[in-house]
Amino acid sequence: MKLGTKQNGTRDGQLMVVSRDLKRCVEAGAQTPTLQSALDSWTGSAQALQKLSDRLNGEPGFGSDTSQVTWKAPLPRAYEWIDASSYIHHILLVRKARNAEPPKTLRTDPLIYQGGSGILLGPKDDILLTDTSWGCDFESEVAVILGDTPEGVKAEDAHKYVRLLCLVNDVSLRNLIPAELEKGFGFFQSKPASGFSPFAVTPDELGDAWQGGRIHLPLETKLNGSIFGNPDAGPEMHFSFFELIAHIAKTRSYTAGTILGSGTVSNEDRSRGSSCLAERRMIEQIDHGKMETPFLSYGDTIRIEMRDAAGKNIFGTIEQKVVPAKA
Amino acid sequence: MKLGTKQNGTRDGQLMVVSRDLKRCVEAGAQTPTLQSALDSWTGSAQALQKLSDRLNGEPGFGSDTSQVTWKAPLPRAYEWIDASSYIHHILLVRKARNAEPPKTLRTDPLIYQGGSGILLGPKDDILLTDTSWGCDFESEVAVILGDTPEGVKAEDAHKYVRLLCLVNDVSLRNLIPAELEKGFGFFQSKPASGFSPFAVTPDELGDAWQGGRIHLPLETKLNGSIFGNPDAGPEMHFSFFELIAHIAKTRSYTAGTILGSGTVSNEDRSRGSSCLAERRMIEQIDHGKMETPFLSYGDTIRIEMRDAAGKNIFGTIEQKVVPAKA
Repeated sequence: MKLGTKQNGTRDGQLMVVSRDLKRCVEAGAQTPTLQSALDSWTGSAQALQKLSDRLNGEPGFGSDTSQVTWKAPLPRAYEWIDASSYIHHILLVRKARNAEPPKTLRTDPLIYQGGSGILLGPKDDILLTDTSWGCDFESEVAVILGDTPEGVKAEDAHKYVRLLCLVNDVSLRNLIPAELEKGFGFFQSKPASGFSPFAVTPDELGDAWQGGRIHLPLETKLNGSIFGNPDAGPEMHFSFFELIAHIAKTRSYTAGTILGSGTVSNEDRSRGSSCLAERRMIEQIDHGKMETPFLSYGDTIRIEMRDAAGKNIFGTIEQKVVPAKA
Repeated sequence: MKLGTKQNGTRDGQLMVVSRDLKRCVEAGAQTPTLQSALDSWTGSAQALQKLSDRLNGEPGFGSDTSQVTWKAPLPRAYEWIDASSYIHHILLVRKARNAEPPKTLRTDPLIYQGGSGILLGPKDDILLTDTSWGCDFESEVAVILGDTPEGVKAEDAHKYVRLLCLVNDVSLRNLIPAELEKGFGFFQSKPASGFSPFAVTPDELGDAWQGGRIHLPLETKLNGSIFGNPDAGPEMHFSFFELIAHIAKTRSYTAGTILGSGTVSNEDRSRGSSCLAERRMIEQIDHGKMETPFLSYGDTIRIEMRDAAGKNIFGTIEQKVVPAKA
């Protein structure tokens, strides 16, 4: 099934069940007014939501038109947002771009950071940027939303805790990163609020494309209407979501609604383009001795979506514009 | 006023208003069943909560006995837990302990990290430790709980966003830190769930001790019943909470219920002891060439509290025991 959160003036919005073709939707009902409440009681609530999903997909005319709805992030505020960096090609390029060595444990120990999760942007929310000199960049990613996940979960059991999948635009302020990482405590100011796809879907909605904890489909990014990248999110995801879950669960447990991102999707094949500006800039540096593509400016729009083998949009579309933050 | 969260079998517990002497409490009422709901609607709800507080403090026999209640963390799950390291003496000692240089911007740019906030431990919750070789340590801290805080807040306006104060035991796995920080993305596995004082209090409850965004009172830590440290949390907090709020708000906004910690409270005066084992171990190394105090073992108990000038316990007591995690 596919779930989305309708803007209704509240902090957490109204949970909606959405048809497979993303055209019709229906309120999830009083037992699960929000996505967090559904995740909190998943064993009991998933079946009722599935029934609504079946009706939406099988009964023409059931539900209302999704185009009339303003969608928030599936979880407009989440208890944790954890982001990995699981595509080796991205790590190598981005570290090179900031003259940093890749970690020695690149292929054996996942890179991961804890991000801010109190305010998550909806798919059409503007990216409010105070200062373009901060070097604003997008990062197109896939993510899983977890159920209650106990400490010590092994990779082979991790599939049990994946409730939903979605897309993320992990906005980054590249020019703030070097000084921040230099201090040794990781990202903070350099990672403002991330944007999310309108819909989060259960793994079965992906069919065979969901395999071994990876999504084997291209993730398309457009910058100002032109294709910027469409790398496959599957084969080059070095640590699968299942391995990432085992990694984060080594020393603690997670509450339902924890979101775990893949990191910027990236392929070695240059014809697939990139999922962030930093990669393209580094490739320009390598090829021409000079970074030419600028970071995001006011008015730039970034569009991210993933289509299945039949060309159908799975998660809906992230489409965000960069605008000046109000003084 | 003083607020606490009663264990009632739900994830977020029942919000209770607590008397100044911590002896009596009363349910906060249907409009604010949880602390998060009160913070979400603070302008409207604070007055009603204050009335209950006034009755508890002025009307003998009103409310029920707090000793019958099991207290959870004030926010059993929070949307963000952000921890600074604002006591310079702590930074210098701990970096020395792991042979790391202090950052060049030590006194001008706050050290801060984003912690996991989906599961926060109650004041008497056990510290579940899978492996004692991880080097489990406590860190006694003070913290603020914020209301909705906009991007760009300046230090001089930051006081407007401080709703509550509380104590934290920021549990750390010291032996996992060096390899994790070496990767460049900050703490993750090395920071399991933190423990919280039973009560969070409005700034006015601290009287003159709350000055300039610092709490000018000693924070007492006992290890297995013996005083381990009682450093003053005020004068040596290099960046005040107001400066820390301005720092975190440079590039993003925060939702109500965001928790911001001070970092391990530490004084240069050695007679005040320490608020974590790592500091004492480093002092032993400097004085005797050898670290002698071990990290926490199963059965160890850590007790943290803060008393006012009259000796009255302000936030209630954190008292946690280290026990083996279930396999």
